[in-house]
Amino acid sequence: MIRLFVPHPLKAGAGVAPTVDQSRYLTAVMRLNVGDEILVFNGQDGEWRCSLAEAGKRGCLLKAEEQTRPQAYGPDLDLVIAMVKRGRVETIVEKAAELGARRVRLTQTRRTNVDFLKLGRLDAIAIEAAEQTGRLDVPAVDDPQKLDKILDAWDPARTLIFCDEGGDARPLIEAAAPRERGDAPGPAAILIGPEGGFAPEERERLRSLPFVIPVTLGPRILRADTAAIAAMTLWQAVAGDWR
Amino acid sequence: MIRLFVPHPLKAGAGVAPTVDQSRYLTAVMRLNVGDEILVFNGQDGEWRCSLAEAGKRGCLLKAEEQTRPQAYGPDLDLVIAMVKRGRVETIVEKAAELGARRVRLTQTRRTNVDFLKLGRLDAIAIEAAEQTGRLDVPAVDDPQKLDKILDAWDPARTLIFCDEGGDARPLIEAAAPRERGDAPGPAAILIGPEGGFAPEERERLRSLPFVIPVTLGPRILRADTAAIAAMTLWQAVAGDWR
Repeated sequence: MIRLFVPHPLKAGAGVAPTVDQSRYLTAVMRLNVGDEILVFNGQDGEWRCSLAEAGKRGCLLKAEEQTRPQAYGPDLDLVIAMVKRGRVETIVEKAAELGARRVRLTQTRRTNVDFLKLGRLDAIAIEAAEQTGRLDVPAVDDPQKLDKILDAWDPARTLIFCDEGGDARPLIEAAAPRERGDAPGPAAILIGPEGGFAPEERERLRSLPFVIPVTLGPRILRADTAAIAAMTLWQAVAGDWR
Repeated sequence: MIRLFVPHPLKAGAGVAPTVDQSRYLTAVMRLNVGDEILVFNGQDGEWRCSLAEAGKRGCLLKAEEQTRPQAYGPDLDLVIAMVKRGRVETIVEKAAELGARRVRLTQTRRTNVDFLKLGRLDAIAIEAAEQTGRLDVPAVDDPQKLDKILDAWDPARTLIFCDEGGDARPLIEAAAPRERGDAPGPAAILIGPEGGFAPEERERLRSLPFVIPVTLGPRILRADTAAIAAMTLWQAVAGDWR
């Protein structure tokens, strides 16, 4: 069944107005008629079965019928990613939504030489991927911030898994696994560097911080999008909701 | 340093002729001069430091100076992937090269409704990704074959890790890990279905085969490219060369 994200309150009997694009998708592309049903979520009120109540030229109206799933969130995982080429950032945001990250934070590092980014487009990608993957929230995509600023304000209760190309780090599945089977893993974030890697002074600072765990992602050089997907996958497998 | 794949023998003193495109890349894009050095591999003779010996209008010539790494292959992992949209197949081939698969086999399943594919383009993607990731071979990309044919001719010594959306399968990191720590894992392949999933009769056949291990990739619906990347990553982490 079609699933749509709408940023409006959902409760039994409530009218829900999709955007113009969503309306067009429902009536012109998917050819829904009044009475047909879809699933809707807003990141707060769970998932609702909604029926198409009105379909006009200027948009359509849905009516929330029944909650199908209560609101739930995945494990508390963020992704901090140095800006790379637009296409790869878009892939990373899509995959972060599929792999259950709650938040994607873009960062500028010494060797970042990219500074475009219409964040609206990234939000749209996050929403579409969240709709398709079945989750009940949409990952937030934050404006780019300097890495030093992000680290200055870091909550030390959140482990920062630093994907290091240095070579002497431990494999992620060992370093990031909770110590005892059954231990609840705390909040975590994964940090992926730019295509040119981190500068030596950035690497030194990261390795000196008590909340940082350096990890390795195998013997081959990975592009930033591959590294991000691999690291999120491994974290979900050993500390997240793939267990 | 620049790394190039060339399908020619490599030994000390040998002349190596790159393709026209590679020549243009070396001299016009990267602006190399005679005497400058690059790394070259051919999938058989290891990696060689080569110097630019001639640079003319109709191409250039390299000279193999010294072997920098002996030939080596990664773990014996194949990827069998139902054809999906071109862009996603291209992503999958690129990622298979980065994540160390030796061979990508395309397959037609009951619910595959895509049948384009210039394989030349996929080979070029595999080569470029192999050059960048630092491996010493290039994954083969096989022409599409019907899934039933592939299964009929399957070597039962190769475990087939079937990424199943059925729900009752075990997590990949448990199901695919060698039984004892230190056990050498045998040859393996990962099977990823089309966007619409496998047909019930395909799923039944797969589950009845003695060499098939059904596995799950977490609670969210993953696109084919995400599933392929996640499965290769997890296999490398527990049974491959990320340990």
